[in-house]
Amino acid sequence: MGISRILIANRGEIALRIHRAAHEMGIETVAVHSTADAEAMHVRLADHAVCIGPPSATESYLNHAAIISAAEITGADAIHPGYGFLSENAKFADIVEAHDIKWIGPKPEHIRTMGDKVQAKLTAGALGLPLVPGSDGAISDFDEMRRVADEIGYPVIAKAAAGGGGRGMQVIPDAESMEPLVKRAMNEAKAAFGDDTMYLEKYLGNPRHIEFQVFGDGRGNAIHLGERDCSLQRRHQKVFEEAPSPVITPEERERMGGIVAKAMADMAYRGAGTIEFLWEDGEFYFIEMNTRLQVEHPVTEAITGVDLVREQIRIADGKDLSVKQEELVFSGHAIECRINAEDPFTFAPSPGKIDYYHQAGGMHVRVDSGLYAGYTIPPYYDSMIAKLIVYGRTREGCLMRLRRALEEMVISGVKTSIPLHQELLKQPDVLSGDYTIKWLEEWLATRDSADAEG
Amino acid sequence: MGISRILIANRGEIALRIHRAAHEMGIETVAVHSTADAEAMHVRLADHAVCIGPPSATESYLNHAAIISAAEITGADAIHPGYGFLSENAKFADIVEAHDIKWIGPKPEHIRTMGDKVQAKLTAGALGLPLVPGSDGAISDFDEMRRVADEIGYPVIAKAAAGGGGRGMQVIPDAESMEPLVKRAMNEAKAAFGDDTMYLEKYLGNPRHIEFQVFGDGRGNAIHLGERDCSLQRRHQKVFEEAPSPVITPEERERMGGIVAKAMADMAYRGAGTIEFLWEDGEFYFIEMNTRLQVEHPVTEAITGVDLVREQIRIADGKDLSVKQEELVFSGHAIECRINAEDPFTFAPSPGKIDYYHQAGGMHVRVDSGLYAGYTIPPYYDSMIAKLIVYGRTREGCLMRLRRALEEMVISGVKTSIPLHQELLKQPDVLSGDYTIKWLEEWLATRDSADAEG
Repeated sequence: MGISRILIANRGEIALRIHRAAHEMGIETVAVHSTADAEAMHVRLADHAVCIGPPSATESYLNHAAIISAAEITGADAIHPGYGFLSENAKFADIVEAHDIKWIGPKPEHIRTMGDKVQAKLTAGALGLPLVPGSDGAISDFDEMRRVADEIGYPVIAKAAAGGGGRGMQVIPDAESMEPLVKRAMNEAKAAFGDDTMYLEKYLGNPRHIEFQVFGDGRGNAIHLGERDCSLQRRHQKVFEEAPSPVITPEERERMGGIVAKAMADMAYRGAGTIEFLWEDGEFYFIEMNTRLQVEHPVTEAITGVDLVREQIRIADGKDLSVKQEELVFSGHAIECRINAEDPFTFAPSPGKIDYYHQAGGMHVRVDSGLYAGYTIPPYYDSMIAKLIVYGRTREGCLMRLRRALEEMVISGVKTSIPLHQELLKQPDVLSGDYTIKWLEEWLATRDSADAEG
Repeated sequence: MGISRILIANRGEIALRIHRAAHEMGIETVAVHSTADAEAMHVRLADHAVCIGPPSATESYLNHAAIISAAEITGADAIHPGYGFLSENAKFADIVEAHDIKWIGPKPEHIRTMGDKVQAKLTAGALGLPLVPGSDGAISDFDEMRRVADEIGYPVIAKAAAGGGGRGMQVIPDAESMEPLVKRAMNEAKAAFGDDTMYLEKYLGNPRHIEFQVFGDGRGNAIHLGERDCSLQRRHQKVFEEAPSPVITPEERERMGGIVAKAMADMAYRGAGTIEFLWEDGEFYFIEMNTRLQVEHPVTEAITGVDLVREQIRIADGKDLSVKQEELVFSGHAIECRINAEDPFTFAPSPGKIDYYHQAGGMHVRVDSGLYAGYTIPPYYDSMIAKLIVYGRTREGCLMRLRRALEEMVISGVKTSIPLHQELLKQPDVLSGDYTIKWLEEWLATRDSADAEG
């Protein structure tokens, strides 16, 4: 007896995404929703719907007891957590499994390990993933620091072990500046955290964000589905994602993909995961692993033809992956634009009622969105309201199609980031793929000062 | 200097389809429209728009002079005729070329040849395409008729050379019935057409409609893009089309595709074309060739990844086909549902104002439609208002996705054929692919009588 009814413990476009995959597999869906989301699209389309609390997410979408009760009342035999909310909550995953409900996600122990930054790095290192080179933990002797820095190469960065938020950090350009700059960082750290313990790392001045999609069956078989380039970010929020990365060759994809897939096989990883790297000068540096589906998964679906949510459900149901590594073909290029209900340039949120909504259509244009005309975007949750995913045989063709699709998309009643994406598509660096994780913020800053001057 | 501005001599979804392809190639578009279509989507999106006449198509979309004038006024350097209207009008194609405007279509002489049924069959036969076996033209001697029928096998059909509309036709099951039945047909023909000349053909009792998409560069290179199965028809109108056909093997596709591609190469065919066959008991029988884009072209685009309108434009611009036969990969399965503004079961037209419109979305769902909320469907033209095209790795997955997408599609204010498609997706014969060109009408008749009894 396989999964027959999935409770979707999420909202918005990802809830609809899961509903679609389930219905395409002949599986019923249960929507759970806060009072603010009673009129949401996925609630309207689901076979069953249960209100689980007030608008506040802690009392609804994060409310373990309410969600488990909803599953029991409706007879759901599996729970898909989507992304965000409870998707990386190992305790909730434990509770789900303890109730004999299938958890459409990784094994709780893997969620736990990868959720702890220190443990994640140790695990990644042990599995053979490339880490940012640095001191082995705390370091206090300046000669030793210079020795380590010589080994990994300048510039290096000194970071406070207790640090965060950019305080107690200094980039060290050369051996002479080591002592004065580290001392400054130590003083900052002492003042900020009461602890001046420092460690050293290779400084990545201007990297790209490149991540690999992986999938495991939980029994030691795993594959990679290539990389996504998510370097266009603002305040660590991805804005525009593409696959493949403009800077990764097929050989490099195969090499690095092989390493991550082997790592996942070795840990007997189950379900979907993403291994995130910084990439600079041809080298990958592990940052973290997300033990869930990502917002940007459709670009991978577009270039591989593999329905990742379907795979998640299959694996939770004890089935094999539907595709083998050697069968997987990477073909064409895909780009996703995240469309948020916000001012396109000040980024001020813009919740409210959608007066008019018209999706882009035509060949190789995909819209994942819970929007409809007359829907009111509640102010309580994430501002992302739609994803526009476009595919083309070439990156250039994909960009042209994206431009065309953005022209067709109409969302009125609220401000959206569509004008931002249209501006981005005029920038030579975006068109040529020549951008890093700093590019977007620098461009926005230049744009602002041009506005101030003009 | 390549094409820089295309005049789209059509309306509805195909006008929008052409606009999209042009914009994705960086080419401007000129919409021409009747007064009834001033608010149409493609008119709103085109870079330029010219009103060419009143609602009556003969005075607008079929008005040669008005269209040529619009092209000259707007500086359009190419005309795409879409399907229907002027798309197979060789005289118009001549006029376009005489005005030094590129005709995005086949050479006028090929439009002419294939538009004449007798010439088309002669040409097809000479090019090696399989024809329906029969007498060599008129036949009057009953012994000779029995000899021919013995050769091609019973049943045969006697047809009036001057015939049409089903009159003057008799199916002959065996040698004994030849004389009385042919005499009856001759009497009918004499009465109806004043001419009792008869010919004999093999009778195809219950064939499928299978057509091959072809493309030529006009210089002797040609490819085929596989077949489409369009057997689900009502009154010769296709309702539901799929690619590949459930009954054609890859070997058969390669064999028959090779024959049609060679035929196109031999005639130095230019642009898109479709070779239509009846298919019965594993044999193909040529019916006709359409020298234009077909409504159902997107199913071919879905399984090949080739943008057929882009190819048409490339070829009209003197470029090569972007894909070689040996590079073409057929992958997965695609189905198109034609959505008409009509009663889903009586087929009575239902023009009017669209109160609410919501497109299906998500993975591998394509909607080609000029609809939007608030749009009024004029009563003057074809009732097709949208095409829903769904792709899946397997036929079964494609059917499941189609069912899911139909659930999401909302078109209110007029009646549409969405409920017909939803009913069709419950029929075991449709699900198994076991249908012929007679299936839909027979099923509708059974359904009507069940309604009458119920």
